[in-house]
Amino acid sequence: MRTSIATVSISGTLAEKLTAIAAAGFDGVEIFENDLLASPMSPSEVRLRAADLGLTIELYQPFRDFEAVPPDLLAANLRRAGHKFRLMERLGANLLLVCSNVSPAAIASDELAADQLRQLASLAGEHGIRIAYEALAWGRHVDDYLHSWRIVQQADHPALGVCLDSFHILSRGSDPIGIEAIPGEKIFFLQLADAPLLAMDVLQWSRHYRCFPGQGMFDLPDLVARVVRAGYTGPLSLEVFNDVFRQADAGRTARDGMRSLIALGDSSVPPQVVPTGFAFAELTADDRLRDLVRSLGFVSTDGQLWEQGDARLVLRGNGDPALTAIGLEGPDPEESVRRAESLLAPSEQNTITAPDGTRITFCRPHEAPPISGNITRIDHVALTQPWHHYDEAALFYRTVLALGPQQSLDVPDPYGLLRSRAMHASPVRIVLNVGVRWQHIALACDDLLATARTLPPDLLLSIPPNYYDDLDARYDLDPELRALGIMYDRDDHGEFLHLYTITVGRVFFELVQRIGGYRGYGAVNAPVRLAAQHAREAQHAQHAREGNAPAQ
Amino acid sequence: MRTSIATVSISGTLAEKLTAIAAAGFDGVEIFENDLLASPMSPSEVRLRAADLGLTIELYQPFRDFEAVPPDLLAANLRRAGHKFRLMERLGANLLLVCSNVSPAAIASDELAADQLRQLASLAGEHGIRIAYEALAWGRHVDDYLHSWRIVQQADHPALGVCLDSFHILSRGSDPIGIEAIPGEKIFFLQLADAPLLAMDVLQWSRHYRCFPGQGMFDLPDLVARVVRAGYTGPLSLEVFNDVFRQADAGRTARDGMRSLIALGDSSVPPQVVPTGFAFAELTADDRLRDLVRSLGFVSTDGQLWEQGDARLVLRGNGDPALTAIGLEGPDPEESVRRAESLLAPSEQNTITAPDGTRITFCRPHEAPPISGNITRIDHVALTQPWHHYDEAALFYRTVLALGPQQSLDVPDPYGLLRSRAMHASPVRIVLNVGVRWQHIALACDDLLATARTLPPDLLLSIPPNYYDDLDARYDLDPELRALGIMYDRDDHGEFLHLYTITVGRVFFELVQRIGGYRGYGAVNAPVRLAAQHAREAQHAQHAREGNAPAQ
Repeated sequence: MRTSIATVSISGTLAEKLTAIAAAGFDGVEIFENDLLASPMSPSEVRLRAADLGLTIELYQPFRDFEAVPPDLLAANLRRAGHKFRLMERLGANLLLVCSNVSPAAIASDELAADQLRQLASLAGEHGIRIAYEALAWGRHVDDYLHSWRIVQQADHPALGVCLDSFHILSRGSDPIGIEAIPGEKIFFLQLADAPLLAMDVLQWSRHYRCFPGQGMFDLPDLVARVVRAGYTGPLSLEVFNDVFRQADAGRTARDGMRSLIALGDSSVPPQVVPTGFAFAELTADDRLRDLVRSLGFVSTDGQLWEQGDARLVLRGNGDPALTAIGLEGPDPEESVRRAESLLAPSEQNTITAPDGTRITFCRPHEAPPISGNITRIDHVALTQPWHHYDEAALFYRTVLALGPQQSLDVPDPYGLLRSRAMHASPVRIVLNVGVRWQHIALACDDLLATARTLPPDLLLSIPPNYYDDLDARYDLDPELRALGIMYDRDDHGEFLHLYTITVGRVFFELVQRIGGYRGYGAVNAPVRLAAQHAREAQHAQHAREGNAPAQ
Repeated sequence: MRTSIATVSISGTLAEKLTAIAAAGFDGVEIFENDLLASPMSPSEVRLRAADLGLTIELYQPFRDFEAVPPDLLAANLRRAGHKFRLMERLGANLLLVCSNVSPAAIASDELAADQLRQLASLAGEHGIRIAYEALAWGRHVDDYLHSWRIVQQADHPALGVCLDSFHILSRGSDPIGIEAIPGEKIFFLQLADAPLLAMDVLQWSRHYRCFPGQGMFDLPDLVARVVRAGYTGPLSLEVFNDVFRQADAGRTARDGMRSLIALGDSSVPPQVVPTGFAFAELTADDRLRDLVRSLGFVSTDGQLWEQGDARLVLRGNGDPALTAIGLEGPDPEESVRRAESLLAPSEQNTITAPDGTRITFCRPHEAPPISGNITRIDHVALTQPWHHYDEAALFYRTVLALGPQQSLDVPDPYGLLRSRAMHASPVRIVLNVGVRWQHIALACDDLLATARTLPPDLLLSIPPNYYDDLDARYDLDPELRALGIMYDRDDHGEFLHLYTITVGRVFFELVQRIGGYRGYGAVNAPVRLAAQHAREAQHAQHAREGNAPAQ
């Protein structure tokens, strides 16, 4: 299907937006009126610029507060529409989006709405222009897509059809099944936006929190499938109002939008290859990190590959410790790379690069038997994301790596909030964090208490006694948790034990034991753990200032 | 009244929070449990630290999901409470906040709730501790303060009273008049938070968007007056969950919170002195700015004070143009300074410093007759604010300068969003902007078209023709607006004409004409104007790179 995006979805001037949209490979563009009004380019210049860039102008939008008004207002509205039709002729746009009326002047009469939209369509027809009527979720009398379709049916004019917008349909909980009742040729346009599930005023939700398909929680594949089954042949067009995208790099946002449409609608993309395990995690290392890994019970024959159970760490170079790459096992590494490439991921041989710079290598399943040790495998890897690429990262890990997203969590930190979102296809779990600089690798073991007893206490993060006093108030737990610095959580499915090593460079390790079907990551304990990490860092900074470095 | 603040309201470790709270002059503190759990200080150490700092521990909070539960859960909850009572003894806290139960396990029975709270109060009494029961706005069965009071009455135990929280009362639209029906001695605690009016889930609203009294839109003076009339004698205590405060400097936030309580409850603060006009605006100037001011028709005898009508600009020094100070006329400058000082504003003689660094000088009304000219006076001044001091600035201008706040607006800019809030006591209007680096002074005139005809076109910001095409579609206006680059808006009260000069340094001027009772600032035109300003800046940057400076 053809691809398109509304200019409002990305940052910059209209000229900059068109350039970025073309560079990302879109076929067409919706011109958002405010972008044109603010542009020094005339409508004719915009037409020529778009043509030079190979972009079709699919839609001009929005035209507001038109239908179901008293006669004097209708005359003014038709006059206003006449101006816009002449502008669209110069612009080379032949489809106008008309949003359902939100004005208090609107009258609750479908008959009046249909009659006036028929007059508008008739006038539009004289200019070779068609009208796509859209039900805004907060329309005064028309707020449901099937209602807008009934009015279009009633108006019965060849130049009048509906515009469907996934946000307006799904945000108000409408069942998209009714889409299949609309003849495809009367669906003049399809706008796509996803969104996180937020319990807030739908107008504010729409204006600030829309995102690209796959970045939120709506079921867009289902909606698109219904529109296609209805016989729609127009473009898939992204229309995203998002406070972060407004500030971000236009080219990067446009490419990310393109990735979302490819994942949604391009049948030539190789199918998802679900990863079956972590092959390895690779880190830049220094002596402190090597000592820490050795103390955790990892062994190495070559000083680079450190193994224990099915967990493998590759320690390279000599620099401030940081996590640089992860290996993912799967049934078909070549197909994984082909899928990643078709979703615009930079690749080199069997390795691709994620938006945060982490390299991801696709591998066949490791066949050698596990090395003995308490640690059995990598449970999850937590990567840090720049705040303005959080949605991009979620889309990447979801579409390219086939990891399912969980809801985003906000975790209090002494100096702010940590935003955290887990992506998983068990047993592969990747956590995307915004607001901290620390990355970490969580290592699974079958008996955390036994494992912890073998570890040097000075390599473990010290957890304050107050935390254990609170645990004692709530649960009746093994007192050794306190002695070993192990944290505890439970959910409806099971229990979770976890402890933390000290941080070296940007990296620390977590040791975890999942009991029963526990699904989380111990987020409830994160504020205490983060405070302990900050406290330790502050203490070390003070020692360093005093020229009095502690042992570790 | 005594002043207090919950540790959750500011950033840092518990030790850092206590230090900042004491430094800001609070009498007491609420210890938020998570702050204690994350602290390496034991409860006894916290008690000693608070005492050393001169702080009373007013409250320990919160204790959750206690009342109206099945018997087995009650036993566990009483055991949990016993742990907390022993902790509070070590901490030296004798009041525990119990929030209304939000758990699905809670039973809808006031009798059961009262009975179990009576048992809790009885146990608390053995430790010399009292229980303040609070209705959360999202409590499962108890979400209204009068409901919590009925249960407390029913329980009828001397160690059980209510905690009132302004957010929980006002966010759900409860009438605070019922407060006066509660005997003062049964109001065990009063928590204060303001908030912007947001149509969103009340839990998310509460957890992320609370602010200090005077920073939001709730009527806190009315609520506090009712609590006082009821006979409450405890502290006024701030409890603010705010994503920005979590990241901001703890000392500054604490001082700002203190200012909010002083403005709310301290009868020794001199009363508000409402400003009656702008005395002057002072700018750092260079030759470009002096030329611009001269071109606007200002005259000067000494090269520093430039006058026209009742507008006065003081141009000082020789540097990149920036707005540094404003003068405000009022009936009693000495009283204005005393009020500002008592509200913690830094002062020197008759000048105070705003949080954004702008100096504000209080003056008696200017008595000389106006200088002739088209410009009559300063209409408004727009100041830029760091994003994390936006609420602080609003509180400062409201309490110290007696300017009434309007709702905050988000204005799209090509590269982000501009957040803007007008504060006014007509004819003094100050606009606080976040997200731009430009400051501006808006100058009023009686006939903007006539004034504009006298100005050199190359000093005016060029507005794109597309903007005027849209105006033509909507209104039937004088075509000279287009020729002169004048923008247009109307509201229910009147019309607004405005135009912009070019920007020099960080400063530009706006010329405005208010017709009828127009109350706004032409915000609807801001996206187009901002785009034009960005475009001009980009063009100049390009000329500069090419070593090809344009005339201006």
